[in-house]
Amino acid sequence: MTKENYKHLDCPIAQSLCVVGDQWALLIVRDALMGLSTFTDFEKSLGISKRMLSRRLTEMVADGLLQRQPIKDGGARMRYVPTQKARDMALVMASLIAWGEKWYPGKLGERYQILEKATGARVAPGMVVTETKTAIDLSECAFLPGPGAQAQ
Amino acid sequence: MTKENYKHLDCPIAQSLCVVGDQWALLIVRDALMGLSTFTDFEKSLGISKRMLSRRLTEMVADGLLQRQPIKDGGARMRYVPTQKARDMALVMASLIAWGEKWYPGKLGERYQILEKATGARVAPGMVVTETKTAIDLSECAFLPGPGAQAQ
Repeated sequence: MTKENYKHLDCPIAQSLCVVGDQWALLIVRDALMGLSTFTDFEKSLGISKRMLSRRLTEMVADGLLQRQPIKDGGARMRYVPTQKARDMALVMASLIAWGEKWYPGKLGERYQILEKATGARVAPGMVVTETKTAIDLSECAFLPGPGAQAQ
Repeated sequence: MTKENYKHLDCPIAQSLCVVGDQWALLIVRDALMGLSTFTDFEKSLGISKRMLSRRLTEMVADGLLQRQPIKDGGARMRYVPTQKARDMALVMASLIAWGEKWYPGKLGERYQILEKATGARVAPGMVVTETKTAIDLSECAFLPGPGAQAQ
């Protein structure tokens, strides 16, 4: 599976997967959004080989998901900070969490909770009518080709 | 990258990726949700080798994402129908579409439009307060470990 395999697929899903479809990349985004930032942090969290992790981090910097910054007083040590592009993945994460909790529930209950910061109310990903900001059921939504779909 | 690599990660994101993290699997779910159903349909849509497609379809039936059904009057020909588990992926798809349209926009505009069936109003994925069904910004949400997070 290489990026070249489906570069020709002019689809925002295919193009997203092209950048974050590697499972490790998505788990690294998850960890970066949860505040991990050093090579050692990611290594411990993922149990991934140093060689694989190093390759993924380099790719993710090139793809604009992570920024490499020197650690203050850390000598040559670097940390990896999520960009806006990576932070925008949080909705994809929330959707994957909801699907995973439903179809692969944890033995001791939910592994994540998403709460409104101000009130502590429970929050979940869903479909929202853009103009009215009201939530509607997924079954009430139609996915249709847009004007850009002609480009294929 | 094998399923074994991160089975030990007790995280709904990791577990979701374990099943649909293969990029072809997600694109096959996309096509199945858009109404494609035969081996030839998927082959044409994805430009994937017969061997790879056959392997992916078998895995996806085993994972409960697709059901294999004989085509009426189709001899030995089979069609692949998305299960509820696959239909529940539509929210993940919508989130990937939104991210992909923002960060990799199509030359001729959006490749997908999501509309409310009843009214034609524009719809987008977002975060919703569970009790009040009101939409809130992602920046107002906190992702916290739940009770099941102890299981690691």
